[in-house]
Amino acid sequence: MSRILGIDPGSRITGYGVVEGDWGNTKAVEYGTLQLGANLPMGTRLAKLYAGLSEIIKRHSVTEVAVERVFVSKNADSALKLGHARGVVLLVVEQAGLPLFEYTPAQVKKSVTGSGRAIKGQVGALVRAILSLDEDPPEDAADALAIAMTHQMLSGSYAILEQMQGGRGGRW
Amino acid sequence: MSRILGIDPGSRITGYGVVEGDWGNTKAVEYGTLQLGANLPMGTRLAKLYAGLSEIIKRHSVTEVAVERVFVSKNADSALKLGHARGVVLLVVEQAGLPLFEYTPAQVKKSVTGSGRAIKGQVGALVRAILSLDEDPPEDAADALAIAMTHQMLSGSYAILEQMQGGRGGRW
Repeated sequence: MSRILGIDPGSRITGYGVVEGDWGNTKAVEYGTLQLGANLPMGTRLAKLYAGLSEIIKRHSVTEVAVERVFVSKNADSALKLGHARGVVLLVVEQAGLPLFEYTPAQVKKSVTGSGRAIKGQVGALVRAILSLDEDPPEDAADALAIAMTHQMLSGSYAILEQMQGGRGGRW
Repeated sequence: MSRILGIDPGSRITGYGVVEGDWGNTKAVEYGTLQLGANLPMGTRLAKLYAGLSEIIKRHSVTEVAVERVFVSKNADSALKLGHARGVVLLVVEQAGLPLFEYTPAQVKKSVTGSGRAIKGQVGALVRAILSLDEDPPEDAADALAIAMTHQMLSGSYAILEQMQGGRGGRW
């Protein structure tokens, strides 16, 4: 059975969510946020991120990982900081030997809400409803769960594409 | 004896240089570039960077690491890519338990050339002269050696500052 880890990388808070099952019958295994310590040196935060993600991947026997594809943000300084965290995420996934899939923010919103133009609060509420959670997940964890579910929903069609093309489909 | 590793991070090519001795009597131990493979997936490149730097730190018993402080670049896309590589650099240094020092590009240029406005080719030629190298080092390696020597030159005054202030001086 596939266990998909969705990650919403950030250099202060990184959201994560693990789901299993099929789209339409999906179940949240665990979700939450890694609080990296906004006032700690960047190196210390990245080491916490590295250790935290490695532990989650191992503990839940994750089989696939999904992250958002990042487009040029307006702010080069925040892009640099996001890059620090995202680089460690890609490293951990590579070292774990897991396939990584990327989806655009529009794909994620559309998968979960049916509209590419959903607003942030809508995603959290729908993630909660789809997964029958007792409470609203933290915002970063909701985004991570939404990314994981997007992969769950789209990986079926990718698998077919892959066979048709003899290639690796949505692989990064 | 302190062995300083200077790093010029990049997601395609990362320059490195290890120096030892004191400023005025400095010696290049090893320098070069890690060619990460411009056409490989980012995760693969970052894993090569992680493994390469870890190996250099271990093999040369590096005691201190110096990198350039990054200022907001004009291009958010290149800032994101640089961030991926720089994040892995900070992670490796943290995991090795080594102190990390950062210097501005102006400090590096001034240390090596005596002028904050030196042009790129000038740095390489002066690095070669200071270290009595037989050939021009590759550009990224020259930058890395210049960063390492900047720390070598300034760490004396930082050490004094540290005693005066009872603090950690230039520590990140």
